[in-house]
Amino acid sequence: MSYRTSRRALLKGGMAAGAFAATTGTARAAESDPLITEPQFWAQGFGDGVDATPYGLPIEFESDVIRRNVEWLTADTISSINFTPIHALDGTITPQGCAFERHHSGAIELRKDDYRLMINGLVDKPLVFTYDDLERFPRENHVYFCECAANSGMEWAGAQLNGAQFTHGMIHNMEYTGVPLKTLLTEAGLGAAGDLAGKWVYVEGADASSNGRSIPMEKALEDCLVAFKANGEALRKEHGYPVRLVVPGWEGNMWVKWLRRIEVMDAPVEAREETSKYTDTLADGTSRKWTWVMDAKSVITSPSPQSPITHGGGPLVISGLAWSGHGAITRVDVSKDGGKTWQTARLARPGEKRALTRFYLDTDWDGQEMLLQSRAIDDTGYVQPTKDQLREVRGLNSIYHNNGIQTWLVNPDGKAENVEVS
Amino acid sequence: MSYRTSRRALLKGGMAAGAFAATTGTARAAESDPLITEPQFWAQGFGDGVDATPYGLPIEFESDVIRRNVEWLTADTISSINFTPIHALDGTITPQGCAFERHHSGAIELRKDDYRLMINGLVDKPLVFTYDDLERFPRENHVYFCECAANSGMEWAGAQLNGAQFTHGMIHNMEYTGVPLKTLLTEAGLGAAGDLAGKWVYVEGADASSNGRSIPMEKALEDCLVAFKANGEALRKEHGYPVRLVVPGWEGNMWVKWLRRIEVMDAPVEAREETSKYTDTLADGTSRKWTWVMDAKSVITSPSPQSPITHGGGPLVISGLAWSGHGAITRVDVSKDGGKTWQTARLARPGEKRALTRFYLDTDWDGQEMLLQSRAIDDTGYVQPTKDQLREVRGLNSIYHNNGIQTWLVNPDGKAENVEVS
Repeated sequence: MSYRTSRRALLKGGMAAGAFAATTGTARAAESDPLITEPQFWAQGFGDGVDATPYGLPIEFESDVIRRNVEWLTADTISSINFTPIHALDGTITPQGCAFERHHSGAIELRKDDYRLMINGLVDKPLVFTYDDLERFPRENHVYFCECAANSGMEWAGAQLNGAQFTHGMIHNMEYTGVPLKTLLTEAGLGAAGDLAGKWVYVEGADASSNGRSIPMEKALEDCLVAFKANGEALRKEHGYPVRLVVPGWEGNMWVKWLRRIEVMDAPVEAREETSKYTDTLADGTSRKWTWVMDAKSVITSPSPQSPITHGGGPLVISGLAWSGHGAITRVDVSKDGGKTWQTARLARPGEKRALTRFYLDTDWDGQEMLLQSRAIDDTGYVQPTKDQLREVRGLNSIYHNNGIQTWLVNPDGKAENVEVS
Repeated sequence: MSYRTSRRALLKGGMAAGAFAATTGTARAAESDPLITEPQFWAQGFGDGVDATPYGLPIEFESDVIRRNVEWLTADTISSINFTPIHALDGTITPQGCAFERHHSGAIELRKDDYRLMINGLVDKPLVFTYDDLERFPRENHVYFCECAANSGMEWAGAQLNGAQFTHGMIHNMEYTGVPLKTLLTEAGLGAAGDLAGKWVYVEGADASSNGRSIPMEKALEDCLVAFKANGEALRKEHGYPVRLVVPGWEGNMWVKWLRRIEVMDAPVEAREETSKYTDTLADGTSRKWTWVMDAKSVITSPSPQSPITHGGGPLVISGLAWSGHGAITRVDVSKDGGKTWQTARLARPGEKRALTRFYLDTDWDGQEMLLQSRAIDDTGYVQPTKDQLREVRGLNSIYHNNGIQTWLVNPDGKAENVEVS
């Protein structure tokens, strides 16, 4: 059967969904649309064969859906961060190719054959594992989000960055495959040293920064994974190939990449990355430390400054992401008037523990200004706070752990900008 | 805190998991391993900054984890297929970059702005949708497998291809975002023409092949998606950018790429792709048609011919994938002796409807020959058959819908090969 268009269809068919056309005035009759009435070149010849893409990349038309850094944020891109293009993604899985990176001394190249993981300290049987050894232990698969503690950090002082990618893009969500840290600690004879209460593990990477962090034993045994695959395939170089630590729900800095050593200790190290960095300075100059968990948070990804509305009104899908380091998202509310009134959004799937949840509000836009906000609620009953509520408790000196409600001003022309409402 | 190794650890630590070492004789003392005792170059300088990978690719060391074709399978790669490297993947998500392709006239390039989708035929209001129009309808997210009807087709005549990638790699599993086909059909006034019983939709793509297929209305309304994202990002060119049809659990040929037209009809078209192709010729020369559903199936991905065992014995993870077009996988059994005895494998997560399920058997290998098999069971109670059971019913003329149990012979040297047992 060759391609044919029904005359009846052409005569009766306008643009999709007459309801939109009435509002927007963009209706075009199918019979005057050359993309319908004329044969197109792509239907008249061959496309690419299967040898063209042994490993594929996005089509050239999507070349703007990439990680981006902010040049003024750090002194050098080697010690910098780039951002997931969350404004252009949907669903929940983040492809590794556009999942944000953060390095402290750059992304190193480490072969599987050169990989070693040592477990030492207060264990009965200190061990060194090769990569092949790790593959011989029982594995688990889990989807988890990884969020940098500094995600939205620039927003403490007010609306700064014009795009969800930059305000909230230090996050990704992948299906990890790895061995429970508990399994490896047990293999090394954990517990032989006595009571585990008050014990810690100190974890460090093979890069020059080492990025050492102390993790309380309770968390180490609960759900940490020594992971070697993400979204089915090997970790990317920039995500710690061949092995990184996964610390579900806790700040991304603890997810040590190129993981090379785990020491069981009876006290935390209080290393650089948990004292001068990754602590939260309060109004009185003292600092909160051990603020590991990423509290419930959400953001509207579309419409947003990088994803404007492209029609004049009518049906509109408002979409975004919600997550909680404490558990599963149970509800997300959306406001169009800066928090005065709220509607409950639709969750695409039931929230999963410590993983991103996609939400949608299927609505009609009247073409007028909106002050869009989203508010996440998790299964502990915690409700995402406003930025002002956070500032009341934490002052203005913080960088990390800003989970305040984000506001986008959507103008009648469909363009959106980052604003704050009080 | 700088990197330091504990002298005690070095003295006490052998290779990982002494239990393995005892069997394999590969133990190396940490103190004689320069990767432990010497500072390594990757810890002494900077790695790459975050500008290096605006959109990332796998690290060079994973360059063999790619789609591969089989040159003799079709006349030209434009009308050919390549295979997902399932032997090297874990978890369940297939990255788009290595998800198999099948084209009938090559992969075309179609811009979003040039995209049109027509719904015509027995509808009250024939419509043409632009890409932007589609984004205004309520969306859903679902993880589904897509399997070519010809997956494992070469194996009807006996063990042919030496690798899970080639015997079972015409499959991928992604999180799709799209609009239910039911929503768009309803928008076009489906039902105004009367009773839907016995009605069909005919779907075709914008490529030269058009690849038209007839789908019964019941399935069209059940769970088909008009999808524009996979694993969060835009579909890749080779997967139908910007829009493909998702027909959960049904053969991949029906998942029309570059979807351009959906006609509601009162009978199937009996087009080329559902008569001379994608039918199953039986022993008596007659053909089964409308064999849409992909029955329950499984395969062990490791160990397998492309993923040999690299140690001499002891702890071994046997891993694989299972799926069913009818529903969710509820159980997978693994045999080491060619089907004489079976052990129930561990499912990494509860089976999800029409999606891949990862299974593991954590076992000890005695270093002797194994005849590895896996057997999937779905929530309808269906048990994956042997190849001989299939041949008894279907003869030897078939290409499509071979869901028989696969056997890998694992030799004492750890290498595996494709064999058949009767």
